[in-house]
Amino acid sequence: MAYSLKKSPGHLLRRAQQYAHDLYSKDVGSSGPTPRQFEVLHVVAQNEGLSQTDLVRHTGIDRSTLADMIARMMKKGLLSRKRTKEDARANAVSITASGRRMLKGAEAKVNKSDKAVLAALPKTQQAAFMKALTAYAEALDKMDAAGAAPAKRKATKRKAPAKRKTTKKKAKRRTRR
Amino acid sequence: MAYSLKKSPGHLLRRAQQYAHDLYSKDVGSSGPTPRQFEVLHVVAQNEGLSQTDLVRHTGIDRSTLADMIARMMKKGLLSRKRTKEDARANAVSITASGRRMLKGAEAKVNKSDKAVLAALPKTQQAAFMKALTAYAEALDKMDAAGAAPAKRKATKRKAPAKRKTTKKKAKRRTRR
Repeated sequence: MAYSLKKSPGHLLRRAQQYAHDLYSKDVGSSGPTPRQFEVLHVVAQNEGLSQTDLVRHTGIDRSTLADMIARMMKKGLLSRKRTKEDARANAVSITASGRRMLKGAEAKVNKSDKAVLAALPKTQQAAFMKALTAYAEALDKMDAAGAAPAKRKATKRKAPAKRKTTKKKAKRRTRR
Repeated sequence: MAYSLKKSPGHLLRRAQQYAHDLYSKDVGSSGPTPRQFEVLHVVAQNEGLSQTDLVRHTGIDRSTLADMIARMMKKGLLSRKRTKEDARANAVSITASGRRMLKGAEAKVNKSDKAVLAALPKTQQAAFMKALTAYAEALDKMDAAGAAPAKRKATKRKAPAKRKTTKKKAKRRTRR
């Protein structure tokens, strides 16, 4: 089949995501967290002491990008890290008071931009849009759990020893998602 | 409403787009065009002599990013540019033989990665996903035509004089999309 922009899921996702990103930038501004920093702050605030592996799973951000982000956010005093007792290699990440302030300061703005993302669509089409995107994220979660997501294969391999120790806990979490 | 990743269209779009981007990188490789370069090559090949304004509209890439891209792609010998007779400021963009080779070399790979983007979903959910994304792109097209897209307001203002001359032609094109 000849390529067509209008029929390309890659193009359509890129366009929608670009628009959502523009709205985020407009609402949150350059002094606030980036979209991914916001996600990391949010997830860490909700689950203190997460390992980087947990964070990869919660946010969908790939391992090497996330490691760079955490290093930068620690330098800025937004996150802190300590080694966990269970596994010396899996560093637990916590949010600092300053990180919490940044999170709280951005939350209403992020909610506003999310509303604007949906408001691009007529009301009658918004539920179907959210349903389709939710189904996609769930499909990615399933592939991830099965170790099938191509971008994460390497990370999964590297983490194998640490993973074995927490398999039961993780399996439980996954079914709850 | 408290923020939730699972209910955030911004987060869900980012996750899906990240996955699509990973697949693209894997299939097309680092020697091929970036996703946006591919889109520009494709659109210019299909519509020789497009202005930058037309390209912004076709690809959804914002004007300043697109201007940078075109400059870089001209340096690489993938695109060429000439001033149009109608308006000295609107530079028509053409694809070179080398650009066409790059486009042809990537097309099957891009199609393959697009198929893999959809294949993340069960077959029964793929049509709904494409329908939702298509509806979103159409909604953005409409906002764009009405001059309401926030990221494009500045560009629209800058282009005002050139726009007046081609209003009829554009209006016709828009209804065709």
